[in-house]
Amino acid sequence: MRVSIIGATGYAGAELLRLLLGHPKAEVVHATSESHTGTPLSEVYPHFLGLFDQPLESMEDIESIAEDSDFIFIGLPAGHAMEIGLAVEEYSVRIIDLGADYRFHDTSVYEAWYKVQHSHADAERVYGLAEIYRNAIKNARIIGNAGCYTTASILALAPLVKEGLIDLDSIVIDAKSGVSGAGRSAKLPNHFPELYDNFKAYGVANHRHTPEIEQALSDLCGTPIVLQFTPHLVPMSRGILSTCYAKLRDDVAADRVDEAFNTMYKNEYFIRLRGRGAYPETKYVRGSNFCDLGWHIDERTNRVIVLSAIDNLVKGAAGQAVQNFNIACGFDEKLGLNMAPMYP
Amino acid sequence: MRVSIIGATGYAGAELLRLLLGHPKAEVVHATSESHTGTPLSEVYPHFLGLFDQPLESMEDIESIAEDSDFIFIGLPAGHAMEIGLAVEEYSVRIIDLGADYRFHDTSVYEAWYKVQHSHADAERVYGLAEIYRNAIKNARIIGNAGCYTTASILALAPLVKEGLIDLDSIVIDAKSGVSGAGRSAKLPNHFPELYDNFKAYGVANHRHTPEIEQALSDLCGTPIVLQFTPHLVPMSRGILSTCYAKLRDDVAADRVDEAFNTMYKNEYFIRLRGRGAYPETKYVRGSNFCDLGWHIDERTNRVIVLSAIDNLVKGAAGQAVQNFNIACGFDEKLGLNMAPMYP
Amino acid sequence: MRVSIIGATGYAGAELLRLLLGHPKAEVVHATSESHTGTPLSEVYPHFLGLFDQPLESMEDIESIAEDSDFIFIGLPAGHAMEIGLAVEEYSVRIIDLGADYRFHDTSVYEAWYKVQHSHADAERVYGLAEIYRNAIKNARIIGNAGCYTTASILALAPLVKEGLIDLDSIVIDAKSGVSGAGRSAKLPNHFPELYDNFKAYGVANHRHTPEIEQALSDLCGTPIVLQFTPHLVPMSRGILSTCYAKLRDDVAADRVDEAFNTMYKNEYFIRLRGRGAYPETKYVRGSNFCDLGWHIDERTNRVIVLSAIDNLVKGAAGQAVQNFNIACGFDEKLGLNMAPMYP
Amino acid sequence: MRVSIIGATGYAGAELLRLLLGHPKAEVVHATSESHTGTPLSEVYPHFLGLFDQPLESMEDIESIAEDSDFIFIGLPAGHAMEIGLAVEEYSVRIIDLGADYRFHDTSVYEAWYKVQHSHADAERVYGLAEIYRNAIKNARIIGNAGCYTTASILALAPLVKEGLIDLDSIVIDAKSGVSGAGRSAKLPNHFPELYDNFKAYGVANHRHTPEIEQALSDLCGTPIVLQFTPHLVPMSRGILSTCYAKLRDDVAADRVDEAFNTMYKNEYFIRLRGRGAYPETKYVRGSNFCDLGWHIDERTNRVIVLSAIDNLVKGAAGQAVQNFNIACGFDEKLGLNMAPMYP
Repeated sequence: MRVSIIGATGYAGAELLRLLLGHPKAEVVHATSESHTGTPLSEVYPHFLGLFDQPLESMEDIESIAEDSDFIFIGLPAGHAMEIGLAVEEYSVRIIDLGADYRFHDTSVYEAWYKVQHSHADAERVYGLAEIYRNAIKNARIIGNAGCYTTASILALAPLVKEGLIDLDSIVIDAKSGVSGAGRSAKLPNHFPELYDNFKAYGVANHRHTPEIEQALSDLCGTPIVLQFTPHLVPMSRGILSTCYAKLRDDVAADRVDEAFNTMYKNEYFIRLRGRGAYPETKYVRGSNFCDLGWHIDERTNRVIVLSAIDNLVKGAAGQAVQNFNIACGFDEKLGLNMAPMYP
Repeated sequence: MRVSIIGATGYAGAELLRLLLGHPKAEVVHATSESHTGTPLSEVYPHFLGLFDQPLESMEDIESIAEDSDFIFIGLPAGHAMEIGLAVEEYSVRIIDLGADYRFHDTSVYEAWYKVQHSHADAERVYGLAEIYRNAIKNARIIGNAGCYTTASILALAPLVKEGLIDLDSIVIDAKSGVSGAGRSAKLPNHFPELYDNFKAYGVANHRHTPEIEQALSDLCGTPIVLQFTPHLVPMSRGILSTCYAKLRDDVAADRVDEAFNTMYKNEYFIRLRGRGAYPETKYVRGSNFCDLGWHIDERTNRVIVLSAIDNLVKGAAGQAVQNFNIACGFDEKLGLNMAPMYP
Repeated sequence: MRVSIIGATGYAGAELLRLLLGHPKAEVVHATSESHTGTPLSEVYPHFLGLFDQPLESMEDIESIAEDSDFIFIGLPAGHAMEIGLAVEEYSVRIIDLGADYRFHDTSVYEAWYKVQHSHADAERVYGLAEIYRNAIKNARIIGNAGCYTTASILALAPLVKEGLIDLDSIVIDAKSGVSGAGRSAKLPNHFPELYDNFKAYGVANHRHTPEIEQALSDLCGTPIVLQFTPHLVPMSRGILSTCYAKLRDDVAADRVDEAFNTMYKNEYFIRLRGRGAYPETKYVRGSNFCDLGWHIDERTNRVIVLSAIDNLVKGAAGQAVQNFNIACGFDEKLGLNMAPMYP
Repeated sequence: MRVSIIGATGYAGAELLRLLLGHPKAEVVHATSESHTGTPLSEVYPHFLGLFDQPLESMEDIESIAEDSDFIFIGLPAGHAMEIGLAVEEYSVRIIDLGADYRFHDTSVYEAWYKVQHSHADAERVYGLAEIYRNAIKNARIIGNAGCYTTASILALAPLVKEGLIDLDSIVIDAKSGVSGAGRSAKLPNHFPELYDNFKAYGVANHRHTPEIEQALSDLCGTPIVLQFTPHLVPMSRGILSTCYAKLRDDVAADRVDEAFNTMYKNEYFIRLRGRGAYPETKYVRGSNFCDLGWHIDERTNRVIVLSAIDNLVKGAAGQAVQNFNIACGFDEKLGLNMAPMYP
């Protein structure tokens, strides 16, 4: 398949290129960057020297790119993918958007949280989280690839919500991410000495991944969910750990919790169930598309606590995009994604 | 005052020495270590070269040390301080224990969580968290210095619990600590390459600081509290951030929350109220005895979220011990503790 | 090819497994560990869950393993590989030793620096640094895989020594390594809080990689070389940067230096010449088998300074072993090694 | 003494404030920043909350500031301090410049390396490295505070150069610094994910600290010295380790090297001689004004290798400035500087 990356110089774009270069059935034909048009990608990301040296293009002539590609992957800030989606509507090219433009069923939710008006609200689109929306992804023309915190959090809570095991208004998600999740723009808060040996929260009560998690979990149980989500910044490069809390419904025993996870995920290659009592660590999945899950039951408080670890740039972005690409193409879902994590 | 440090080679003991060397009214007369008896402390901790080169002693003859000291600070694993407390009962020396032996009103709680039988259960003792137990500390003979996670968590929630603003069974504390909190023993999980670029939870539903937090908060409201506490390990050296969640009682407005913090802490030098909407970072307090607080109200979920940052080795251990020492001596509470944090 | 890993639980052994799992022509049939015999490897290294769950074996019956394997990779402390080499002498199995036992032409040098007597001194063996000893590797039965610091340092200086451009007694190599190079044994100096925000030298004038570098460079020019080598520990997981200094011979112009690099490496896939004036960074090669080189000429001092970056666990250990394996098998040298580096 | 900080929002300026707040004989009366004029310093550096909340001033009216101050400390980019020096020439205020403008005896050297024309070339000035220029500092009106790399490097080599023990053209200084040395401006190369788990060299053959080291060492032996200096960036916040190499002159024995260090530094409080064979680590001095030295002799190569560790923001900048201030005021040199290092 001929694929193009629109916005190749963000961390997610670069990670996507890393994965696609190792994919046996994808050929990267165009990579664009408006700020570095004409510069070889391997100057912007020197680790690609000898692996991908072709110059970055502009996305100005997106129609030509669309014509020349089977798939385009978009890694742009909110509000830009929808313009591309509109512009290439007449072409047969399929779109996997790593941003948020196509993630919401209801664009008014998107508009409220992202403060951007949606210009392509009637686009047919599918939420790109394979373990839950696989069937819809198969034939989708536009896939709104799930976000990083959201992937870790939804996968952690999905079995419990789906099986009706928890009080829906008791959900608290306390998530922690490495700094690559904040992107590659140099800003004081992410300046090395500011973050080193430092830890902080941000986006309390207003982070944009909140409604995305709520949407997917609500889909699973048919009831609107409002939940607490708090992100934190960890002084490391990669990885997300999501610690998810919920009150168990009164008569729920531990083995029903175990069963819910096993039932939902037993055939999912990229979900590794570490079991009740286990502690997944972000380094267990680094560089890979795995999501590792462990869960705990606190009999004193009657809560279930689920721990979920992913690599934010892989299962939380580029790897998930490739997984969706594989599904959309009818390929084996693991194609280009079956590398072992990199440890230590 | 003549002071001695029993167990001077743990990180808390070394930090205590750092602070006491800069204290104008304390002279360190004995420092003990059973594993390094006879070795100059500055060989075990080379940063003390030229500052404290005297050999470490054994605590075998604790009676002599007691006789020679006005205060002894104890930094030993659970179960050891009580033996010392018993042994020096006849002496006028006062004790500040940085461990858990003297932290609990009810030693059966201690015994249940620490799996150690208490041999000094009838000792008169005071819980060493100055902002809440200051009056009792003044004349205490034995002070059970508050733990690290507990200090951050109790100070975050105390105003809300005291003023009755939150549902007591809705408390979730998600805490994150630098690795120095795990002590100086070299073990595989804390081996550098294992933790670097890695993040994980541990002790879910069973960490020993849980009952300590519950005790202090219950003291403030007169009702037994059972809460959720989850610690995590951050790949950094120092610092704790505690993210505390609770449901607000129905009629509680934001300004009542603000007022609760202001009322309780307005005269507390070591509590820095950063206010509603603020994000304290662990680096803001590094090396200092401050506890920085910020809080947020989520109107969608009706929860209050409090963020609390301390240096686990200072306000979470050695600095708190010095603060307690100052109170017990009738000194200005800031003596030896008024250094600015070290940033970056 | 059927391959076995003897000593699979060190970092180099685990990295080797990561690479071999992705190798299209290698099947790992045995993995041994004396300390964890019987334990699934994925318990010792949880990132392998689902990828390699078979139990670790003992190497006690090394003859059976030899019989069952085309190649054995050995990752054991100095002095152990030679015992295995002796024990399997009668078998057709080929050996790639990641340790030092088979690296030296003259075992008395090995014995002097390693303080171990060599029991297999007459073994036919080849030094396993493909860019210099490729032809010999092709048919070698025993390959002494080059060390990590040595690989970075030899590749940096080889063109200059080979072409006679520098004063041989002026060589100073100042090398810096991430902590994974120190192995997985938990010891106080590598305890996380001790190394974090810390930097130090070690092994000045006596590090064991010194004679190995000297041997290879002497091979290239036919003259015995004595040089200065100093290793340092960087608070990071992976990567080596070697900064190499030498005085240029009187009449050597900059373009002759450039030419020396180009001539020697222009067809080497794993050597990426970044050119004169360039600064390779360890992250440019992380997770890959590349060695990136940049060089500088200081006209004030008449010195050439070469900067060399590798991933110590890949080109410095496991990747090099796979490269040697490919050569020894007559495979394409890039097989299983053509992944892009992982950045950031 | 009334002191002012011109350029208080760089890392060195903030560190200076930390030290001066703890200095018993200094009162900070003005702190300026052109980019943050009017903003409380504790908003720019939140760790100062409650400790220094006064608004930053402009330096536009430098004459008033000069009139109101006994000392001004300047922390500005190259080329700005000389303008201030000129402007306040008529005032009795004394100047300690943390930048390079007043470091060179010969301003043409400054102009060649800094590409700035010197407008105050005839100013009487003293190089501010107390251990070597103490007497001159006592009565100096303008002190050009020594740089960070230079302090570590000069102190390492001074005894050897002074006693004539080494070949002057054989000096190689390989230095490594934490990232705070690069300042607080957010730029891509110092963006957290770019540097984390990464190591690199920079400024080979052209770093501006080179002529400063050469000047001081030449002063000590009376012969012009040309040397090799290479800086590197370590993924940590603070600290410099300088590894210094030189060939010993033919008849120099190890004890003469030891003696040179002892003779020169035996009465220097801030120089801690760890001795021959020792490995100073940057963490041993973190947060303090110490310079720790260890040295090694390699009999194979006839080289001496000196290791020198400082905190780049303390002995390499702000601490040194306070030390110079103390000397210039006739105070005890340790005033405000006798804190223990912060470890871990």
